[in-house]
Amino acid sequence: MTEPLAPGSTLGILGGGQLGRMLAMAAARLGYRCHIFEPGSAPAADVAHAWTQAAYDDLDALRGFAESCDLITYEFENIPAPALDVLSETTPLFPDRRALEVSQDRLTEKTFLAGLGLATAPFAPIDTPADLPTALAATATPAILKTRRFGYDGKGQARVMTPEDGAAALASLEGAPAIAEGFVRFSREISVIAARGRDGTVSAYDPGENVHEDGILSTTTVPAALPLTLRTDAVLIASRILTALDYVGVMGVELFVTPDGLVVNEFAPRVHNSGHWTQVGCAVDQFEQHIRAIAGWPLGNGARHANVVMENLIGEDVARVASLAAEPGVQVHLYGKAETRPGRKMGHVNRVTGPA
Amino acid sequence: MTEPLAPGSTLGILGGGQLGRMLAMAAARLGYRCHIFEPGSAPAADVAHAWTQAAYDDLDALRGFAESCDLITYEFENIPAPALDVLSETTPLFPDRRALEVSQDRLTEKTFLAGLGLATAPFAPIDTPADLPTALAATATPAILKTRRFGYDGKGQARVMTPEDGAAALASLEGAPAIAEGFVRFSREISVIAARGRDGTVSAYDPGENVHEDGILSTTTVPAALPLTLRTDAVLIASRILTALDYVGVMGVELFVTPDGLVVNEFAPRVHNSGHWTQVGCAVDQFEQHIRAIAGWPLGNGARHANVVMENLIGEDVARVASLAAEPGVQVHLYGKAETRPGRKMGHVNRVTGPA
Repeated sequence: MTEPLAPGSTLGILGGGQLGRMLAMAAARLGYRCHIFEPGSAPAADVAHAWTQAAYDDLDALRGFAESCDLITYEFENIPAPALDVLSETTPLFPDRRALEVSQDRLTEKTFLAGLGLATAPFAPIDTPADLPTALAATATPAILKTRRFGYDGKGQARVMTPEDGAAALASLEGAPAIAEGFVRFSREISVIAARGRDGTVSAYDPGENVHEDGILSTTTVPAALPLTLRTDAVLIASRILTALDYVGVMGVELFVTPDGLVVNEFAPRVHNSGHWTQVGCAVDQFEQHIRAIAGWPLGNGARHANVVMENLIGEDVARVASLAAEPGVQVHLYGKAETRPGRKMGHVNRVTGPA
Repeated sequence: MTEPLAPGSTLGILGGGQLGRMLAMAAARLGYRCHIFEPGSAPAADVAHAWTQAAYDDLDALRGFAESCDLITYEFENIPAPALDVLSETTPLFPDRRALEVSQDRLTEKTFLAGLGLATAPFAPIDTPADLPTALAATATPAILKTRRFGYDGKGQARVMTPEDGAAALASLEGAPAIAEGFVRFSREISVIAARGRDGTVSAYDPGENVHEDGILSTTTVPAALPLTLRTDAVLIASRILTALDYVGVMGVELFVTPDGLVVNEFAPRVHNSGHWTQVGCAVDQFEQHIRAIAGWPLGNGARHANVVMENLIGEDVARVASLAAEPGVQVHLYGKAETRPGRKMGHVNRVTGPA
């Protein structure tokens, strides 16, 4: 085994939201100092050694940030390519650009997944309105139009119930390059949080079952109500994606459970909201696992010792937090965001429902 | 239920070591910003919003610190009384002065415990060398001489095997006011980590079994190999101490298991090294529990969902951390201390040995 990055080293995190905040605390537990790069407000900076507040097109700021760091990672996938160019001049970035390039663009991502022989929703590109009829013929309706880039939590999406709805739906995306995705008839949504180390070792957590509301994750439950064969399939799919990308770090892979098996929805090249349950269910949570992976530590084995329900506190949900905290087995995570807004993730709770 | 201290408030922590560091991260999870007061190096400052680096006799610095905080707590009990005077002019301090005054002085502490009807080692004060014969007659030999104040991790202590050793042992304490403590014949050392909220609610964790090496805690194991009646006794003893002090926060109570039942060794008015196992064994760990208690949240119920062995990494032990991390179920906590020194607590690992 090679030695991990020395304790006392500085880890750069692009993005100062809740994922960056929880990554920073995990990095501290492994003895590292964190430096946050975030143009806006940065809850992560409250638990980090340093914060560079600058825009992603401020190349001098990016250069100074990179020079202060021994290693850089990120909490979100929409990092502009010129920023990546500057950072990588001086400092290693994990997960690397390939994972970002694939996951930043829904068309590239779907094409990549299909190329691995994995089942996805039917999809077709829409570069101009003229592509719409062909695309909807390929996917059938109902379908969803999605911008190829910069969508998250249901943003940049529009439903198409019949071919006649298509033009209005596409117009709502304001001319951005898009794809059409056919509906997948599924009984459940699950996700696998998996990690790959710098030595190629792969480790996965037990799949969690996700419930979304208004396009935003509401709860994740482990164990998922899933036959053992599908649990194994889910982990194998995640492992295949990690290996194909020569990936280093934690990834979240979202899957649909259908009568014909698992269909891959999408993956995120980072720690994932649906993996927050690991904070109470596993010895090594997804945040520590990510830092272990990128900093060259041995990976945790992903074993789960408790059953857990993770519940997101969205917008005014956060007003319930003190009464949730009074219930047995409830662990609180607030993100330190100053302002409560509808649809904004303000925190989450992990509820232990029993030993595993 | 009254509302807890509002998220976004600032919590002051006196002391910037590993306990302060883990308290700061727990406070962040509850949405608070932390301000560390620490004259020396401060691993806690790496995960805190602000750090005042000043001495405990710098009353202006203390005043400025207190004014910036909504609530103050501490990670160690040896805070000078004039500092407490200044802090309490503006800002509430939990646990309060009474707990500090009792625990800062071994004689006051033992007298307090005996006054509650709890079993302690036989003890006697030694203010001057002339007190030595009477004291050793009261405790019998072998005995231990300890400075009344400012001792920790075996420092400020000397063994007395026969009355003839007494003078030399006392001389090694360099004239500090001391007490003699008789030996307690015990089969095990255990500790109870318990909390009391601002509303008087008490909650305790399962007692852990402690092994010390060279006067420093080496491992804590839960569950302790202990009959149920003694587990209950241990929790009742802790509860009695908390209530008698009208205490708010987490306390660590160290106990000896003897043929005649439990004997109280000492208590610490703070989170405790022997409670680190709660980080992986409980939904609400001792650090979150302490912040909950002082900030007016409902307490976690202390339920344990995993069996755990906590192992301290002392001095060069820390070199083993990467290989320990490779073992199943091992969670790593490094303290971000720059320099490894013999006897210095550099980190700990929590090993899950099975579901509870």
